[in-house]
Amino acid sequence: MNPIQVGCRLRYEIASPATLLLNLSVALNAHQTTTDESLEIQPFQKAEECAVGPLGNRLLRLSVDPGQLSIDYRATVELYADEVDSTDIPEAVYEDLPADVLSYLNPSRYCESDKLFRFASEEFGQLAAGYSRVTAICNWTYEHLTYTPGSTGPTTTACDVLLQRTGVCRDYAHVAISLARAMGIPARYVSGYAVNLQPPDFHGFFEAYLHDRWFLFDATRLAPVGGFVRIGTGRDAADIAFATIRGEATGTSVEVWANEQKGDHPILDSDNVRTAVSSA
Amino acid sequence: MNPIQVGCRLRYEIASPATLLLNLSVALNAHQTTTDESLEIQPFQKAEECAVGPLGNRLLRLSVDPGQLSIDYRATVELYADEVDSTDIPEAVYEDLPADVLSYLNPSRYCESDKLFRFASEEFGQLAAGYSRVTAICNWTYEHLTYTPGSTGPTTTACDVLLQRTGVCRDYAHVAISLARAMGIPARYVSGYAVNLQPPDFHGFFEAYLHDRWFLFDATRLAPVGGFVRIGTGRDAADIAFATIRGEATGTSVEVWANEQKGDHPILDSDNVRTAVSSA
Amino acid sequence: MNPIQVGCRLRYEIASPATLLLNLSVALNAHQTTTDESLEIQPFQKAEECAVGPLGNRLLRLSVDPGQLSIDYRATVELYADEVDSTDIPEAVYEDLPADVLSYLNPSRYCESDKLFRFASEEFGQLAAGYSRVTAICNWTYEHLTYTPGSTGPTTTACDVLLQRTGVCRDYAHVAISLARAMGIPARYVSGYAVNLQPPDFHGFFEAYLHDRWFLFDATRLAPVGGFVRIGTGRDAADIAFATIRGEATGTSVEVWANEQKGDHPILDSDNVRTAVSSA
Amino acid sequence: MNPIQVGCRLRYEIASPATLLLNLSVALNAHQTTTDESLEIQPFQKAEECAVGPLGNRLLRLSVDPGQLSIDYRATVELYADEVDSTDIPEAVYEDLPADVLSYLNPSRYCESDKLFRFASEEFGQLAAGYSRVTAICNWTYEHLTYTPGSTGPTTTACDVLLQRTGVCRDYAHVAISLARAMGIPARYVSGYAVNLQPPDFHGFFEAYLHDRWFLFDATRLAPVGGFVRIGTGRDAADIAFATIRGEATGTSVEVWANEQKGDHPILDSDNVRTAVSSA
Repeated sequence: MNPIQVGCRLRYEIASPATLLLNLSVALNAHQTTTDESLEIQPFQKAEECAVGPLGNRLLRLSVDPGQLSIDYRATVELYADEVDSTDIPEAVYEDLPADVLSYLNPSRYCESDKLFRFASEEFGQLAAGYSRVTAICNWTYEHLTYTPGSTGPTTTACDVLLQRTGVCRDYAHVAISLARAMGIPARYVSGYAVNLQPPDFHGFFEAYLHDRWFLFDATRLAPVGGFVRIGTGRDAADIAFATIRGEATGTSVEVWANEQKGDHPILDSDNVRTAVSSA
Repeated sequence: MNPIQVGCRLRYEIASPATLLLNLSVALNAHQTTTDESLEIQPFQKAEECAVGPLGNRLLRLSVDPGQLSIDYRATVELYADEVDSTDIPEAVYEDLPADVLSYLNPSRYCESDKLFRFASEEFGQLAAGYSRVTAICNWTYEHLTYTPGSTGPTTTACDVLLQRTGVCRDYAHVAISLARAMGIPARYVSGYAVNLQPPDFHGFFEAYLHDRWFLFDATRLAPVGGFVRIGTGRDAADIAFATIRGEATGTSVEVWANEQKGDHPILDSDNVRTAVSSA
Repeated sequence: MNPIQVGCRLRYEIASPATLLLNLSVALNAHQTTTDESLEIQPFQKAEECAVGPLGNRLLRLSVDPGQLSIDYRATVELYADEVDSTDIPEAVYEDLPADVLSYLNPSRYCESDKLFRFASEEFGQLAAGYSRVTAICNWTYEHLTYTPGSTGPTTTACDVLLQRTGVCRDYAHVAISLARAMGIPARYVSGYAVNLQPPDFHGFFEAYLHDRWFLFDATRLAPVGGFVRIGTGRDAADIAFATIRGEATGTSVEVWANEQKGDHPILDSDNVRTAVSSA
Repeated sequence: MNPIQVGCRLRYEIASPATLLLNLSVALNAHQTTTDESLEIQPFQKAEECAVGPLGNRLLRLSVDPGQLSIDYRATVELYADEVDSTDIPEAVYEDLPADVLSYLNPSRYCESDKLFRFASEEFGQLAAGYSRVTAICNWTYEHLTYTPGSTGPTTTACDVLLQRTGVCRDYAHVAISLARAMGIPARYVSGYAVNLQPPDFHGFFEAYLHDRWFLFDATRLAPVGGFVRIGTGRDAADIAFATIRGEATGTSVEVWANEQKGDHPILDSDNVRTAVSSA
């Protein structure tokens, strides 16, 4: 695929000495590499990079003094997704799930799958097992929620959203993850950059473990899955906040971008439901 | 209609001086009279009857000493329900709702209708207004819940039940009340005796205000609405607990009955959806 | 006491035909009268006054066409509060509570007292019964919450607030009401105008039933209880919203005032905890 | 210390082919070894051991046919805890926390620390940082909760327990973990065997990361921390259920034991608050 240029420009007003934990660097793994990458912090200071977990989450930790702070991150990313005919993908056999996948069946802070066994079973239990069942979960989520910025907050869970029927990208992902787990399908949250997302912003989506690997899904239909650049992976959004701040710091502006470079290999169109994307 | 013989026999073990507030006497109003009624308390003591609210709720208050306590209540009830062709019943016009009906649009402890506007609108907003819309709410509730004794408790709300999809009669009523209120239809909870309920027990159902009066509904389909004998009416089950106890008293047995006397005018069959029952 | 001039000026932008239910007229009862009162609606139209409940709640219902809408309400109010030495006020005996007070022991939408028996008993169970115990509940609420505009919303309950420890006047009232009910003390919500409230706004407080009548309390300490002018009374804020709107109407400005006229009988200072105020 | 003999005997009635995921084998790490260990499954079948995570969680996965199933697990365990004078243990510096500890600051399914910042800060913010602050959290939990079997269920969270003020060992741990995380102290859930626990059962406790390692704590005071044998470690109880069952299997009996062998080195007494136990 054509390279993708991603980045963000964050501005903070720091009122007292603060520590920031930022999760905005693209993950580096077999499916995703950067040909150039830069981080500029002003006023200049060193950021420590913490590698968290086996999935390449790269946290930046920096301690800052009062004043203006600006962070500019840029990377050119090459994606090497596996594209598979989605009609051929079965669900994994529960007895054979790899040990490191099992925890993604557990309920988590924003994904109370343990409360939703009957709900999920009623809605999706009669469907054929496989990739198409996760697609059905995405469709249900898309059709029953209304995308409404400001309608949810940092403590809103999948169950809250299932009742109020509004949310933003992270809520769509939490609902779909919860329903997948309740059906016995391991699922986890992914944050990232997304080509063609309007308005441009960080994005939240998810992946489900099917057959023998993880596949990307997005219930919002806001941008093509093939143009998703992974930042962090976690049980839900609690694990991969873009910024965690200790001290008095106020974000004053955020700019995010993800642009496909011109070329012969345009990114996959998520509307093509026959094509599954595996990138983890 | 043929008279109905209702009653209950409650046994308590009283460990310390206690005050009981019992809500088991049948309501007396234009739609419901008793030809004989008896209350026997052993050991003998006087129970004070408190009339609560304009709907004929009759609370019995008694203070008891430690020891065994038995309460036997019996009544023969004549019902004078209005039977109306349900196809003719429109919803009331909001601007014309009587003042004393307005509070039954408000959310209450177990009926968080304020959280369900979008949910209700999505499911029932496209349906024709009128009696049939409340029937649709009952049908939805019946079809999406599984009647499961023990699956809910005293703090379970309609929202909890909408997620977990199981409950008992009071939960069915709370769900339907919440959805009706969210659609702008005043609705309230009714406790009572119910002919042909299996196993025999106190029952919980609801009524909705349509056109110019209240109509009885039951989303459980466990017994014919025409055989419901009203005990109490309230916003939800919080208002009309069968027994509220201060002190140490343990219920050791409950027996409840509601039997139609033989005769020429059998009670209405709730399956006959063309016939609406108004009894308040 | 000196008369109090209260009023409000509301502006709405009406986008489609709408019905408004407004609860801003002062209640009229033995403790509160108006010497002059005016309501001006522009463009001119008739508002129907609905009397709701035995407490003098006066709802204004009006149906309006698209365009600008302004509502100006003014009244001069005389208060006739009973002032009692608070040290003499016992709690009511549960067995002797009047029937119409019993429902104010029940949990309600925003006051889940049924979940808080142990919490309340642990914090307040060892205190002497009486007026001073409700004062202790107010003090606890004041000391453990931080008054934070914007920290709560229309679905926030007392239990939410007990965890997050922030709220506004209605939340303070809901917490105190819940704790009082959990202790067996009937309690209910009151909306009103409040002299010396800064910034001026509608206010929410509560009353508790002690001995043989209702007494006013306010856990926020934002204004003297003696200067509270009652608008509505209900189980909690769900019963007495200032405005309930059907249709597309957007509030564009709200101005509220409550000013004591100069004179020889200044309103009671709430800091004087020896003086209890009964006005219902 | 003297060796500890632990084990359990589980009986299941299997109604349909089922898969069981059992978490009852003791963790093996530098602080804990077994000199003999046996697992007996009747009828005989192979159980696959899945190692989950870096902490030595050992899950047994077995697929069983309908009929009786019995599982007998036994091990003799040697503990090598580090004992430290607790007065010397500071909290870790946030900027210096190891990357793999950071996720234990995140809220999780049963530990909604994100809702409790103000609550925790109010109760524990004025205390000196260090081991003693976690002890204060344990004391608060112990003093404000009542240990009540049956008062909580599989969906009960720390916030639920903070309101209702009752729970069992897992709830005590969830509350303490949540408050610790809200104070910026990484904390996680540990399941295990516990010498002298009455009645004998599996136990749930927690550990907090202080200075440069994890220390064990137990807010229930039901058994000495020095006699805790670790089974699993997770974010909360959602990660380390003793048994996760797919299919129709009913537990018919559970027997659990943990006995210290006679010898010269009795286990630490948890009452000795001067001695901190680090075993991870």
